[in-house]
Order: sequence, then structure tokens, then C-alpha cells
Amino acid sequence: MTKFIARQFLRNLKNMTTAKPRIVPNKYFSDNTAKDVWSLTNETAASAANNAKNKGRELINLGQGFFSYSPPEFAIKEAKKALDIALVNQYSPTKGRQTLLKSLLEVYSPLYKTQLKTENVTVTTGANEGILSCLMGLLNHGDEVIVFEPFFDQYIPNIELVGGKVVYVPINPPKDMDKRTVKGTEWTIDYKQFEDAITEKTKAIIINTPHNPIGKVFTREELTKIGNICVEKNVVIISDEVYEHLYFTDSFTRVATLSPEIGQLTLSVGSAGKTFAATGWRIGWVISLNPDLLSYVSKAHTRICFASPSPLQEAVANSIDDALKIGYFEKMRQEYIRKFEILTSVFKQLGLHYTIPEGTYFILVDFSKVKIPHDYAFPEELKHKAKDFRISNWLINELGVVAIPPTEFYIKEHEKAAENLLRFAVCKDDEYLEKAVERLKLLKNYM
Amino acid sequence: MTKFIARQFLRNLKNMTTAKPRIVPNKYFSDNTAKDVWSLTNETAASAANNAKNKGRELINLGQGFFSYSPPEFAIKEAKKALDIALVNQYSPTKGRQTLLKSLLEVYSPLYKTQLKTENVTVTTGANEGILSCLMGLLNHGDEVIVFEPFFDQYIPNIELVGGKVVYVPINPPKDMDKRTVKGTEWTIDYKQFEDAITEKTKAIIINTPHNPIGKVFTREELTKIGNICVEKNVVIISDEVYEHLYFTDSFTRVATLSPEIGQLTLSVGSAGKTFAATGWRIGWVISLNPDLLSYVSKAHTRICFASPSPLQEAVANSIDDALKIGYFEKMRQEYIRKFEILTSVFKQLGLHYTIPEGTYFILVDFSKVKIPHDYAFPEELKHKAKDFRISNWLINELGVVAIPPTEFYIKEHEKAAENLLRFAVCKDDEYLEKAVERLKLLKNYM
Repeated sequence: MTKFIARQFLRNLKNMTTAKPRIVPNKYFSDNTAKDVWSLTNETAASAANNAKNKGRELINLGQGFFSYSPPEFAIKEAKKALDIALVNQYSPTKGRQTLLKSLLEVYSPLYKTQLKTENVTVTTGANEGILSCLMGLLNHGDEVIVFEPFFDQYIPNIELVGGKVVYVPINPPKDMDKRTVKGTEWTIDYKQFEDAITEKTKAIIINTPHNPIGKVFTREELTKIGNICVEKNVVIISDEVYEHLYFTDSFTRVATLSPEIGQLTLSVGSAGKTFAATGWRIGWVISLNPDLLSYVSKAHTRICFASPSPLQEAVANSIDDALKIGYFEKMRQEYIRKFEILTSVFKQLGLHYTIPEGTYFILVDFSKVKIPHDYAFPEELKHKAKDFRISNWLINELGVVAIPPTEFYIKEHEKAAENLLRFAVCKDDEYLEKAVERLKLLKNYM
Repeated sequence: MTKFIARQFLRNLKNMTTAKPRIVPNKYFSDNTAKDVWSLTNETAASAANNAKNKGRELINLGQGFFSYSPPEFAIKEAKKALDIALVNQYSPTKGRQTLLKSLLEVYSPLYKTQLKTENVTVTTGANEGILSCLMGLLNHGDEVIVFEPFFDQYIPNIELVGGKVVYVPINPPKDMDKRTVKGTEWTIDYKQFEDAITEKTKAIIINTPHNPIGKVFTREELTKIGNICVEKNVVIISDEVYEHLYFTDSFTRVATLSPEIGQLTLSVGSAGKTFAATGWRIGWVISLNPDLLSYVSKAHTRICFASPSPLQEAVANSIDDALKIGYFEKMRQEYIRKFEILTSVFKQLGLHYTIPEGTYFILVDFSKVKIPHDYAFPEELKHKAKDFRISNWLINELGVVAIPPTEFYIKEHEKAAENLLRFAVCKDDEYLEKAVERLKLLKNYM
């Protein structure tokens, strides 16, 4: 035992005296050390779970967009079947399994109103890696990419880490968002400003429709304007369409289909995670009417991940076939319309205005009317954050409800536009949403 | 019908007249358009499968390192169980699931002879994305990375795509490889040359042990020399140890454990795909005794893939526990010793020399003695390739056996060293290897 202690002592001494080497990491990571909204919110939630107000009641988490329920039964069944085939556990072709490519052609050919070929599709390890593959495939050092605000936060490092420069163009909200419930179409792009933002160095734009966090579905007119400007200026359109099956408007417009010229410049990104309530499966894809353009995405993907998870690719391939047979996508859409009805009922009752969700599983709610004590004890780290971070912190601590402050999806100079808003996710089961409604009713004590 | 044809005609016309946009992709991809060895070999195999020689016999593929069999039954069972848990189908923490981190600590703590913590491990989407995460986490534009030749081909684009510059240092083979069967230790590094290759800009080196394609297991002495030079020059060691359980020497040395100073500079990369014969699962990890250093890997991984496939992470977590209980890793090692015995028997019989496989599932065989007709009709695209590409092509076409030409893993200036070698993979079931032996016996007609 003494020997053991001595050995331990020596080892500790050794560790203590090991000089830490000087590590100079990628400047991107040493420059960007601010805690992101996900860590910040999760940590607040964890520490608030047992405060005096929340003691004895469940914390209601409508923050991050993960599903509280399982993928559909048929998808789980397909995944299990896939595992039983020896070769489905080995490398898939880097472009994706033939079975999945074939199923994707079946879904998308009618939507694109043309018979797509395998050269029009490439499988990626989730939509996130799909977007990174688009950017890495195309960007050279110093190239610019236009991103609309608010943006999905992951776009920014994806662009910057491959040597690109982000140029921001706002989607302007209606001025009186605090006074009435508004429509997605009232969030507008200033096309002159967009055009002016395009320079010689602009390689691509990223658009997102249905839009997270606004819940806006871009109209045919809006997308045509954007697309035509891109054609005129020869700018690639990376269209993040991961919520493509979650639109509650009459139709969903795919920018790639608006003209042959626009189609030749467009890369459209899809996600099995969003489509089959399986965010942990990491299967996505990129579609393009321009096989040349798409080939660079495949090449980048080959170097980033080599290939995507085979049994889950196979599962998605067969799940798509099942889904088409039973009308799953339409059923899912109807379910989400119901989920939004459940949640918005409480905001209507309280008179809290919001942007009518036209798509995605997110809703932006205006909290201007909620009175938060001026002297509320906010943590130091929120001091330099916009007001919505404090509203979110208060909501977690006082009501035990987690929602995301959307100024995270803006640059500092533009965050004023969203400082009274919170983003709620409805990809939860109905009972959970009912519980959220009950809890949110308590807001009336603060209005 | 006429209307349909007219519409088709108009559409075709429209497509024909759509001017293709001018796409300027990432220079890396427009510069590197040569067909890689995998495409080249697979295409040769496909077209040779039905030539006059191969008609009526099976093509024996010992080329790419994928398993011809299933992962162990317990791993498949764990994957199916994982799918049944709702939340295991959703996003995992970007650093990896707690269950997997815990299992990895259990495997590696005894091997590192210290109690590792979760801050010492991060999960990645396969070892490939693990290495890319190391590089993206650390490299700034213009940083240099030293790679030993022969190298795993994927390292090169991984370094160059994040703005790094590759510096090559050869592992020198014994001069008389064609005259006798040699040992891995006879492939040597000139340490003076290695040291001279390090400059102010050298950020990292990549080592690979057990080594693909040599089959060499670096000794404690070799790794200590390399490690001490890295400590002296403050260079990070990225140690690709994906074949860590496939060593046939007395022991496998982990460079990170050789001194506290070396440990502080080392990132070690592991792979569930290699460990559980599941190359399609895409689960890997990076381990470091230096949590600071590792944190940059996690940060890069978060931006590249966000998170890794959840059900497969959970499956690996539980499979590791199962494997430890039944001594799976040792059993696998014994199986591979047998597989190599099967395959090497034919080379011994023919008098074809090779490098004794000390690890991995690859073997390099010297084909100097095989007489390939000088006037053999090789395809045009092999004209500027080294001799081994022609040996490989001949072997596929004449004997129906696929093996990989290893000069692909060298730069042009150094490829002479390997021009008589072919790499064979033995990660195939035993009967298949027996068939390979029968087929390879035909080589005696050409000696």
C-alpha cells in the first residue's frame, strides 16, 4: 500500500512537472471561444431544473429541434433488416448506395418534373456534412458566400473553415411584429440590397426554405427573383431544403425547378433525419440538375467522410419506398399542423403575437408584452447578449420552459430585429405540447 | 401522345439550349483529376470479369480492405437493440454518447495505464473524419504536416483541403526485398532526414501503426525516437491506430504512452469499423492525454458532422462491453494470424517474397519474379503509372485476382521503391482465401 501511494505520488509529480506544450490551433477555433446558444441554453436548463420555482415540476424543453419520439415503426424495421445483410455493414460507394440513390430518384423525379439520374444525386453524412461538402467542393480561399439573416448557425463556421467569407443580407421582419400575428411573406428581402451584396468574389448563396427559425416558406415569386439574380451574376444557389416535407402552405417551391438556368446553378440539400424523425441517423443528400456542379460535392464528401453509414442508408432507401406507399409525408404534414394548433392556442389566448408557421417545426413568438423585472438577477455571461437571451433565461428559471433566443442567428449589428423573439420547437409528442401549453399559461401573471 | 412527344421535344430543346454556367470549383478538385487507384482497380476488375481468361471463373478480390463477412453476431444484436430506444435515434452530443465514451474509457484506461476521463476521448464519424477533425482543428493556412511514405492516400487531400502543405519522409524498404522475405522492422526511417524535414511551419506529423500497406508494427524504440523529436520540436503527433487490435507481434506500442511529454502532444485515432468488421458503420474516435489539444478536434468535428450516428454509437458502446467479456479482440487477432497463414502459403510455395505481416490485414508481396510479357496490351491510362499498376492490371486480366498497386501511396519521385509490389487484403472469409490460393498457384506458369 505504501508502495502504491509512493507510486501514485511519483506519477502525480511527473504529471505536474510535465510542461504543457504550446499548441497553436486553427485560428478559427482560438478566435471563436464564445459559448454557443445550445451549450448556454442547455447549461441554464440543467442548473434551473431544481431551483425553487421548478422544484417538483418537469422542465419543458422546446429548445433544440430534436424529436421526443421514435422514427416511424417501418423505418426501425427497415434498419434492423439492413443490419442482417453482411455487406450492408461494410463501406458503401462514396456517392451512396445504389438502393438509396434509386429511392431518391423515385421521390424527386416527379417533384422536379423530369427523370433524374443517379448523376443528379449524391448521399452525404447528414445535411450538415452535405452543406459543408457543397462549400468545400466549390470555395477557394477568399470566395464570398451570401447568407440571409436569420441563419442556421452552422452555416457560418462551415463557410469560414473552408476559407470563405460570409456576407450577410437580412430578411427584414415587419415593423409591428409586437402588435399583430404576421405571415412569413411579411419577412422580406430587399432585392436591391441582395444584388449589391454580390461581388466578383461571390461564389454562392445559401437559402433555407422552409426557413428555420422564421417558419417562412419562400414563395415562387421570391425564389424566382433570387434565382434570376443568381443566374445573371453566375452565383451558385445552395438550397437547404431539409424541412421540405414540413410545409403548411398550399405548395412548396423548389428553386431548382424555376428555370433551366436556375436549375443548372442549384444544389438542393435534403435530410433523412428531418424526414423520418431520426436526427441521429446522419443521412442526407444533395440533388442537382447539373451533374458537373454536383460532382464537386461528391468529391468533397469523399474526402470529408469517405462514405456514409451503410445500414442507415439502406434503411432510408427502403423507408422511402414504404413512405411513398402509405402517404407518410402527407400524414406527417397533417400531424405537424395539429402540433402547431396545440402550441399556438396558448399564445392566442395570451395575446402573444407570432409569425404564422408556414413550415419547419419552429415558431417565433414575440415576448414584448411579457414584463420581466428590470432587476432580475441575470448571470454575468448574458450581459453582452441581446435581450432575448435574458428573456430565455428568465423563462427557463421562472416557468421551467426552454426556448431558443434567435439573435444567435444574427450578427451583432443586426440582432435588434429579433431581440423580443423566442423560438419554440414543436417536434415533440402531443401530450408534451399540452403540458407546455399548461405551463405557458402562467405567463399571464407577467403581462 | 403527339402532345406528349411535342412536350418532350420542347423540353429537350430547352435543355439543349440552356447554356451551362461557368463553375469554378475548389482548385484542389480541378487540379486533381487523375483517377484514384480504387476507381481504376474497380473499373479494371469490372471489365476483366468477363474476358476470355476469366470467363466461367469467379473474380477473386483482395483489393480494397472491406470485410467479406458480417460484424460479430453480438454487435448486430446490439445495433438492433439500440434502434428500439426512441432517443437513440436522435442527435447524440457532438462529443459522443456517454455510453460510448464510458466504454472507450474502459478499453483504453488499462492500455494507457492511467484512468482516462471523458475529456480524453471524442467520438468521430469514422476514423477518416477523425483525422480530418484533428487536421482542421489544428492547421492554419500554410502549416506543414509530415507524412511518411507509403501513406494512406486519404491523408493527403485531408491535409491539403484545410490549407496545409504535405511534407514527405520515406520509410525505406530493405534493398533486397526481391531476394528474401523481410521483416517490418527492416523498413526504416532515416531520423536525420525526418528531423531535417521539420521546419518552423511544421504543425503535425501523421504516423500509422500497425501500418497500411507495409503491415509493419512500429517498435517502442522507433516510436520513442519519433516521439522525442516531436517533443523537442513541439510537433503534434496524429497517430492513426485503426488496426490497433490487429498486431501479430508480441505487443503493440501506443506512442502516447511513451513519456508524459509525448502523451501531451499525441492524438490517437481508433475505428469501430476495423475493430468490429463494420467498415460501413462510420464510428471512430480520437484519444488524447491532453484534453486541451483534443478540444480542438471536438470543435472541428462539431462543425464537420455535428454528431455521429447515434444507434451505431450505442451499438459500439455495448459491443465493446461484450467484446471485453468474451476476449473478442484476442480471438480476432488469432483469426487473422490464421488468415495470413492461408494466404502466405502460396507465396512461400511459389518463392515470391513478401514483408512479414506484423499487423493490419494487408500484405505486400514482391512480384519481381513474375514474368509479364513485355508486349502485353496495357491500357493507355497506365502508360504514365509505375510498373505495379501494370502488374496489377495483368493479374486481374490473366488470373482474375485483384490486388492494389502500392505506388499510389507514394509521390511520383519516390514510387520506384514499391514498383514491384502488390498489396493483398486478407479480411475475407477463409474459404475465399483458399480459393485465392488456388488461383494464385497459376502464377507458376509465369515464373
